[in-house]
Amino acid sequence: MSLDNLSRTAYTDDHEAFRATVRQFLEKEVAPNQAKWAEDGIVPKDLWPKAGELGLLCPTVPEEYGGLGLDFGYNAIVDEESAYYGRVTTGFSLQSDIVTNYIVRYGSEEQKKHWLPKMVSGEVVTAIAMTEPGTGSDLQGMRTTAKKDGNHYVINGSKTYITNGQNADLVLVCVKTDTEVQPAWKGVSIVLVEADRDGFQRGRNLDKIGQDEADTSELFFNDVRVPITNCLGEEGQGFIYLMSELPQERLSIAVSAQASAQRAFDDTVEYTRDRKAFGKPILDFQNSRFVLADLKAKLQVGWAHLDWALARHLKKELTPEEGAAAKLWHTDLQWEVMDKCLQLFGGAGYMNEYPIARAWRAARVTRIFGGTNEIMKELIGRKL
Amino acid sequence: MSLDNLSRTAYTDDHEAFRATVRQFLEKEVAPNQAKWAEDGIVPKDLWPKAGELGLLCPTVPEEYGGLGLDFGYNAIVDEESAYYGRVTTGFSLQSDIVTNYIVRYGSEEQKKHWLPKMVSGEVVTAIAMTEPGTGSDLQGMRTTAKKDGNHYVINGSKTYITNGQNADLVLVCVKTDTEVQPAWKGVSIVLVEADRDGFQRGRNLDKIGQDEADTSELFFNDVRVPITNCLGEEGQGFIYLMSELPQERLSIAVSAQASAQRAFDDTVEYTRDRKAFGKPILDFQNSRFVLADLKAKLQVGWAHLDWALARHLKKELTPEEGAAAKLWHTDLQWEVMDKCLQLFGGAGYMNEYPIARAWRAARVTRIFGGTNEIMKELIGRKL
Amino acid sequence: MSLDNLSRTAYTDDHEAFRATVRQFLEKEVAPNQAKWAEDGIVPKDLWPKAGELGLLCPTVPEEYGGLGLDFGYNAIVDEESAYYGRVTTGFSLQSDIVTNYIVRYGSEEQKKHWLPKMVSGEVVTAIAMTEPGTGSDLQGMRTTAKKDGNHYVINGSKTYITNGQNADLVLVCVKTDTEVQPAWKGVSIVLVEADRDGFQRGRNLDKIGQDEADTSELFFNDVRVPITNCLGEEGQGFIYLMSELPQERLSIAVSAQASAQRAFDDTVEYTRDRKAFGKPILDFQNSRFVLADLKAKLQVGWAHLDWALARHLKKELTPEEGAAAKLWHTDLQWEVMDKCLQLFGGAGYMNEYPIARAWRAARVTRIFGGTNEIMKELIGRKL
Amino acid sequence: MSLDNLSRTAYTDDHEAFRATVRQFLEKEVAPNQAKWAEDGIVPKDLWPKAGELGLLCPTVPEEYGGLGLDFGYNAIVDEESAYYGRVTTGFSLQSDIVTNYIVRYGSEEQKKHWLPKMVSGEVVTAIAMTEPGTGSDLQGMRTTAKKDGNHYVINGSKTYITNGQNADLVLVCVKTDTEVQPAWKGVSIVLVEADRDGFQRGRNLDKIGQDEADTSELFFNDVRVPITNCLGEEGQGFIYLMSELPQERLSIAVSAQASAQRAFDDTVEYTRDRKAFGKPILDFQNSRFVLADLKAKLQVGWAHLDWALARHLKKELTPEEGAAAKLWHTDLQWEVMDKCLQLFGGAGYMNEYPIARAWRAARVTRIFGGTNEIMKELIGRKL
Repeated sequence: MSLDNLSRTAYTDDHEAFRATVRQFLEKEVAPNQAKWAEDGIVPKDLWPKAGELGLLCPTVPEEYGGLGLDFGYNAIVDEESAYYGRVTTGFSLQSDIVTNYIVRYGSEEQKKHWLPKMVSGEVVTAIAMTEPGTGSDLQGMRTTAKKDGNHYVINGSKTYITNGQNADLVLVCVKTDTEVQPAWKGVSIVLVEADRDGFQRGRNLDKIGQDEADTSELFFNDVRVPITNCLGEEGQGFIYLMSELPQERLSIAVSAQASAQRAFDDTVEYTRDRKAFGKPILDFQNSRFVLADLKAKLQVGWAHLDWALARHLKKELTPEEGAAAKLWHTDLQWEVMDKCLQLFGGAGYMNEYPIARAWRAARVTRIFGGTNEIMKELIGRKL
Repeated sequence: MSLDNLSRTAYTDDHEAFRATVRQFLEKEVAPNQAKWAEDGIVPKDLWPKAGELGLLCPTVPEEYGGLGLDFGYNAIVDEESAYYGRVTTGFSLQSDIVTNYIVRYGSEEQKKHWLPKMVSGEVVTAIAMTEPGTGSDLQGMRTTAKKDGNHYVINGSKTYITNGQNADLVLVCVKTDTEVQPAWKGVSIVLVEADRDGFQRGRNLDKIGQDEADTSELFFNDVRVPITNCLGEEGQGFIYLMSELPQERLSIAVSAQASAQRAFDDTVEYTRDRKAFGKPILDFQNSRFVLADLKAKLQVGWAHLDWALARHLKKELTPEEGAAAKLWHTDLQWEVMDKCLQLFGGAGYMNEYPIARAWRAARVTRIFGGTNEIMKELIGRKL
Repeated sequence: MSLDNLSRTAYTDDHEAFRATVRQFLEKEVAPNQAKWAEDGIVPKDLWPKAGELGLLCPTVPEEYGGLGLDFGYNAIVDEESAYYGRVTTGFSLQSDIVTNYIVRYGSEEQKKHWLPKMVSGEVVTAIAMTEPGTGSDLQGMRTTAKKDGNHYVINGSKTYITNGQNADLVLVCVKTDTEVQPAWKGVSIVLVEADRDGFQRGRNLDKIGQDEADTSELFFNDVRVPITNCLGEEGQGFIYLMSELPQERLSIAVSAQASAQRAFDDTVEYTRDRKAFGKPILDFQNSRFVLADLKAKLQVGWAHLDWALARHLKKELTPEEGAAAKLWHTDLQWEVMDKCLQLFGGAGYMNEYPIARAWRAARVTRIFGGTNEIMKELIGRKL
Repeated sequence: MSLDNLSRTAYTDDHEAFRATVRQFLEKEVAPNQAKWAEDGIVPKDLWPKAGELGLLCPTVPEEYGGLGLDFGYNAIVDEESAYYGRVTTGFSLQSDIVTNYIVRYGSEEQKKHWLPKMVSGEVVTAIAMTEPGTGSDLQGMRTTAKKDGNHYVINGSKTYITNGQNADLVLVCVKTDTEVQPAWKGVSIVLVEADRDGFQRGRNLDKIGQDEADTSELFFNDVRVPITNCLGEEGQGFIYLMSELPQERLSIAVSAQASAQRAFDDTVEYTRDRKAFGKPILDFQNSRFVLADLKAKLQVGWAHLDWALARHLKKELTPEEGAAAKLWHTDLQWEVMDKCLQLFGGAGYMNEYPIARAWRAARVTRIFGGTNEIMKELIGRKL
C-alpha cells in the first residue's frame, strides 16, 4: 500500500525521491515502536535528531541557518507519509510546518541563528502556545500577560492543548503585552520562552480520545522572566503574525487529513476483500461497494484539490479563505472516510488493536484543532 | 439534569418510582467508582449483588423463580438511567434484557430453578456467546461445535466480543450440534457452559475504543465437556431461539442509545450556555442554536417513537422488522447527537476527562453490535 | 395502497369511519379531475360545497355555528388522505386547520354566525394573508397598513404567496393598525376583508415549482375600506393570535408531509418490485433495499411521533416548540423520502407523468412555508 | 457575475478568448428568448446555425471535415458558459461532446464527409438513442432490433428520453443486430437513421420536471429501412464504442454541473446580501453564512478537481472510473448547492420566475442521466 499511484501533479522527481527517505525512516524508526509510544502517550525525544539527520525536519529553513532551503512540498511529503505509511503523529509538522515560519519570517537575526539550526537537527523541539483554558479559538480573548519589568517580560497565565508540550525545549507563547489597547488584537505579542526558565511548568500530558503517541499538555507560567529580546518580531504584531501563518498551518492539516483518509480507505478495501460474511467477501455486497466507490470518488477529488492548493501555496497565492476551505473540506472528508470505513470492519473496527480504530480516534480532532471547522466557515463566510 | 420532563407515555407511576431507586443506586454505587472501573476495564463483580438486592436485575423473572415478575418497562428504566444518569455500561442489560428471556422461555424447569434466582440476586453473572472471530453477524457460519459423547457434549471453538466475558459465571454458547444438516441453521443449538468447566478459558479483556468499564472478551473452548442436559431447549432450535429474542435485544439497545443521546444533548446545552467564545456564550451563536435545535427536534421524535415501541413490545406486538428499525434509527440518532455535541465542546471534547468524550467513544459500537446497522437494513429490506 | 396498516394510536373507530368518507370523496371528485386542475393551476370552486356536504370542511366548528364540533383528528384525517390517497393539495387544510380557529377563538359572535356556517358548507372559501413581498417570515416587519377613518379601516399594501388567493371570498389580512408602537408586534391586527370590497385586487396566480393545482397569489389592497367591526378580536393583538395558532398550523403541515412521504415510499416499493434492470427487479439490488429499508425505519418513527403529537394537541398540551419540531422534522423527512424515491425511478422520475415527479415538486415548499425550517430552529433554539 | 476569477488551471488564453465569444452568443441569442423556449419546450432549430457560424458546435471536428480541430477544452467552455452565463440547456453538448466523437472515431469516410461539416455548421442536429422504455441504463437489455434484409437493415423498436429528439435530423440508434449471440453485448450495433426515413416517428416531447427548453422525446421505429452502410463502424461493436465514449460524456456532465452550481451559489450570495429579514440582510445571519461558506469550500474543491480531470482528458489519461467519479461527485455537489441555495431564497425559491427555481428543477436530472449515480458507483466499485 502506498500513495504512489494517484496521478498527483504537485511534486517533482526530487520530491518523490525524498518521499522514499521518509518512508524508510518511518519503517525503521517508527513502525517497531509505535505501540509503545502510544502506551507512553509520547514520542521519545531521541526520535527528533534521527529525523533531523535525514533532513526530515524543517526542510524550508534557508541554508544559512542550517537548513536545506527547500519548498513546502517537502514538508507536505513528510506529512503525507507520516499519515499514510506511518499512521503516526510525531509532532514534527508542528515544528516544520508552523513554528519554523514564525522564526524565519519574524525572528531577529540572533533568534534565527540560535534556534533554526537546532530545530533542523532535532536538537530542539518547539511548541506554540495559543489556546487558553476557557477561550478556545478566540485569540483576542487570551488572558496570559507579559508585563515589562526593565529589560524583561514577566509572564503569567496558562495555556492548554499544547502539542509537543512535554517535549518542547522552546515555546512560542502568545501573550498580551498590552491589555488596554483597543482593538484588543493590537495587544497580542509572541514571546519565545525557553523551557528551563524559572516559573515555567508543564501540566499533565492530557488524556485524549486519540493520537495516543502525541503529547498534548497544559503549560503554566508563573512570573516567568524572559529578556525583551525574546519577543518575536515587533511587540503588538502577534495577531498579525498568527493570521499570516494560518493558511500554511491549515494546508498542513489538510494534507495529513487527506493522506490518513486514503490509508483508511486502502486498509478497508483490503479488509473487505479478505474477510467474508454470509459466505462471500464483504466487498462483494453492493452496499460495501457503493460506500467505498463513493469514498473513492471523493478521495480522487481531494487529491486534485490538494495538489491545486499546494501549487498555489508554493506560488504564494493561496489565500486565507482558500486555506480555511482546504482545512474544512479535507478534515470533513477525512471524518466521513474514517467513520464509514470503520463501520465496514464491524466489531473489529471497535477494537484498538486494529489500525482503523486508532486512525478513527486520531481523526476526530482535526475538525477541531487549527481553528474549529466552524471558525473556518466564519472566515470564509466573512468574505462573501 | 434528568429524564423527568419528556412527556413520556410508556410508563406508570410504579415504573417511575422504580426509576428513583435506580438513580439512587447509580449515585451511590456507580458515580464514585466509575473512573476506577474505566481504568480497570471492568466493573467489579460485587456490584451485581448490590444491584440484585434492589431489584435492578432481571425484573421480568417470574416470582416462582425468585424474580419480581415485572414487565420489560422496568428493564428499560434501568437501561435509561444507566445511560443517562450513570453514563455507565454495567453489563446488567445483557443479563436482564437478553439472557433472562432465553432461560425463562426455553430453559428446562431445572435450569430455571437453578439459574434464575441467582441471576436475579446477582450471585451469578451471565454472558451469551454468539460471534466468532471471522464470522461477524453471520450466525449460520459459526464453527464452534458441540459433539455428543455419551451423555455429554464436547465443545470446541472460540468466541469473541463477548460482553461480561471476564465476569461471567455462566455462558450461553451458540454451537453447531450438527455440522452437516441443510439448511445450516438447523444445526445451531445453545448450550449452557459454567465458567468452571475444564477446558473453558477466558481470553484477553479486549482493548476497545470506548465503554472502558465494560469487559469484552474472547472465550476459548477446548474439549469442554458439559452434560447434555445443559442444552437450552431443543437441540437444533438455537437459531430459532436467537431470532425470537432479537427484537427485545434491539429495543434494549435503542433505549440506551436514546437516553445516552439525551444526556449528551443536555450536557452540551449546559456547556454552551456557560462557556464563552468571542465574548458571548457559545449557545448565543446561531450555528450552535441551530445544531442543538435540530437535535432537540430529533430527540423529541425519538422519545415518542421509543414509547410507541415499548408499548408495542409490552403488548408483544413489536415485529422483528420494527425492532430492527428501532435499533437502526436510535443508534444512528445517538451517533449524530454525540458527534455534533462533541464538536460544540471544541478542544475540550477531545479530552477524555470530559464525559462527552467518553460518551462519544462509547456510542460508536452501537451501530455495530446487536447486528450491524447494515444487517438491520437487510432485515427490514427483505420484508418490503 | 393505503394508510390502514400502520399501527397508529391516534385515532378512534369514528375517526377511521370518517377516513372512508374522505377516501370516497377523493376517488370520486378528485382523481378524475386532478390532471385538469394541475393544468388550470387551480381547483374549481364548486369542489368546496361537495366537500362541505360530506363534512370534510372545518370539522371542529361547534354545532351552534353549523359545524360538527369534532376534534382536530378529523382535520388530520382529511390531510392524511388528501396527501396519501389523493396526492392533491386542495386548499381545504388552510381553511379547516388554520382559518377556522382564528374565527372560532377570536371572532365576534356576529363574525362567527356569519362566516362559520358558510365555511363549513363550502359556500365560502377563505385565505389568510401574512407574507409580504420582501419580508418573508418576518411578521413584525410587515408594511400593509389599516388606518382608521371614522368607523372604517382603510387598508393599503400588498401580500404574496397567499394560498387560496384566487378562490377566496374572505381574506384574513394581517395589517399594521399602529405603525409607531414599540415593540412593533403590538401594532399588528387581523382584519377580515371580503373579496368584493372596492380596492381589493387579486394578482397573478403564481407559477410555482409544484402543487400545480393549488392557487397561490399576490393580493393588492388600494384604499380598501372595511368597517371597524371587521377587526378580528382586539386591535393590536394580531401577533399574539398568530403565535397562538401556529402549533396547529405546523402540526397540520407535519401530518401532510408524513402522509405524502408514505405514499411516495409505497409507490416506490411497488415500482422497484415491478421494474427490472440488468435482468432483475430493481428492489433486488442491495442498494435499493438499503435505501428503502432506511426510509421505512424513518417512516415508522415518524408515524409514532405524529400520533404522539396529535394526542398531545388533542389534549391542548402541544407546545409551540414541539409544534415547530414536528414541522421541521416531518418536512425534512418528507424531502429525504421524496428525493431518494425519485432517484430509484431513474429517468421516469424526471417525467411529470409519474406521480413521484409531481409529489417531489410539491414537497419542496414544505420546508419553506408555515415558517421556514430555519425559523423552526430559531424558535426551538431560543428555548434551550 | 462570471466564471472569470476562479484560479483555474485548465485553460489557455485562446480558450478564454473563445469564452468571450460564447458569452456574446448567449447574451445576444439566448437571453432574450429563453422564457419563450421554456414555454415552447424546445429551442428553435435556427439557433443551431447561428451557433455553428461562431464555431460553437463540435469544435473538435478535424479541419478536413469542416471543423476547427480544437481540443475538448473548447467544448467544456461552451458547456460552462451555457450553464453559468446562459443558464440554458441547448442540446449543443449532446452533439458536440458526445455524437461528434462517435462519428469522428468510428464513422466511415463517407459518413464523416457527409455529416460532420453539417454538424459543425448547425445545418444538422443529431441525437443518440440508447435508453428504451423499461430498460433504463441497461444497454445489454435493449430490444430494438435491426434485421438484415439484403443491403438494408429493417429497424423495429422504440426509444425514450432522447435529447434533441424533436429537432434531430440524424439519430444514432443503438440496436441489436444479433439477438442470439452470447454475451449479449456482442449483438449491439449503432446505426445512423436519418429522420426522414419511412417508419421513423417522433413521439411526444416529454413533460419533464425541468430543463423546460430542452426537448426530450420518445422515438418509434416501425420497419425503418436504412442501407447497411449506415452502420457506424463494425457491426457488433456498438457496446464497445459506447463504453469508449462514456468518460467524455460524463466529464461533460460534470462540467455543466459544476458551472451551474457556481451560478446558483453566486445568485444566492447576491440575493441574501440584498434581501433583508428581521431587519438585516439574510447573509448576516450566521446560518446563511455557514451554509454558503461550506458550499464555497466545496465549489473551490470542485473547480480544482474539474481542471485536473480536464487536463487528464486532454492527455487522454482520464480512466472510465475517473470519469464516472467526476460525474458522480459533481452532480451530487450540484444538487447540494441547488437545494441549499433555493432554501435561502425562502418563498421566492419556489416560484418559477426566479432563476434559482428553474436551475433547481433542471439540476434534478443530472444524477440520473448519463448513467445514474448508482451506476457510477457500480462502475467505480467494480474496480476496487
